[in-house]
Amino acid sequence: MSIDFIMARRSIRRYTDDPISRDDLRKILEAAMAAPSSRDRKPWHFVVVTGREILKRLADAHPHGKMLAEAAAAVAVCGDTNTSPDYWVQDCSASTENILIAVAALGLGAVWLGCHPRKDRVDAIREVLNIPEDVGILSLISIGNPAEQKDPRTQYDEERVHQQSW
Amino acid sequence: MSIDFIMARRSIRRYTDDPISRDDLRKILEAAMAAPSSRDRKPWHFVVVTGREILKRLADAHPHGKMLAEAAAAVAVCGDTNTSPDYWVQDCSASTENILIAVAALGLGAVWLGCHPRKDRVDAIREVLNIPEDVGILSLISIGNPAEQKDPRTQYDEERVHQQSW
Repeated sequence: MSIDFIMARRSIRRYTDDPISRDDLRKILEAAMAAPSSRDRKPWHFVVVTGREILKRLADAHPHGKMLAEAAAAVAVCGDTNTSPDYWVQDCSASTENILIAVAALGLGAVWLGCHPRKDRVDAIREVLNIPEDVGILSLISIGNPAEQKDPRTQYDEERVHQQSW
Repeated sequence: MSIDFIMARRSIRRYTDDPISRDDLRKILEAAMAAPSSRDRKPWHFVVVTGREILKRLADAHPHGKMLAEAAAAVAVCGDTNTSPDYWVQDCSASTENILIAVAALGLGAVWLGCHPRKDRVDAIREVLNIPEDVGILSLISIGNPAEQKDPRTQYDEERVHQQSW
């Protein structure tokens, strides 16, 4: 099997007005929860937003989140810090990446907006989405039907590959 | 496009004696470096190990790494903590997940062995692979030709999905 579907994931920040189907949103969440997690603890939670008013508030809550005001959906990828204090960040990052790859495979577009460990971003999103204090907010993903095209690409760099030892 | 390839990624810990081709190793690294990174800083480095003696030393260096002694290859996913102090963990986690998905798509098997933030694991691997002190070690990935089969699956759980707000 080709792995081109991994190279097809690009950061897409401009969208058409079209909505995302329930079926696609469900697939995206199935992909999210197909990620591995440390000790199989699955610390993740997902807040799915499709309401325009809340999307607009999220756009204001994140310094690079302007596109959320026009997005069809946002997913906040969160992690229960009690369930997995040492690994929730890594588990939720893997889950975020799964979402991004699924989105691209479905013909949609998305961008990963970093939240944790920036307290200002986390606090602002926590307030908009009513997320409990002991739940970390790893990322906010903006999703829509792409109004920009980007070619698949790797960023392969031989200098980052060390053979047998550093 | 179906997203089954994401569900096909499972933790594979038993391998045949067959090697992995150079071509497949290259594809795996291309997938690794196709991940997104915060501010496009690409803090990642990859140590690729195929030598049996070093694989055996890695097996001893990680408490859950026994399978490395029989693996065809290991990849240590590392991050330059100076380049991206706040986000190298997330960037390297996304890169690790890309490797795992690529491995599955290529018909190979792999498992993610967590390292950071466990100091004992990081110190032991750092010594075996001669990794500089200011480079974090996010994960060690054991890769081989699968000697066990696992069915694709999501771990979808409705209770982890919050609509519009927590």
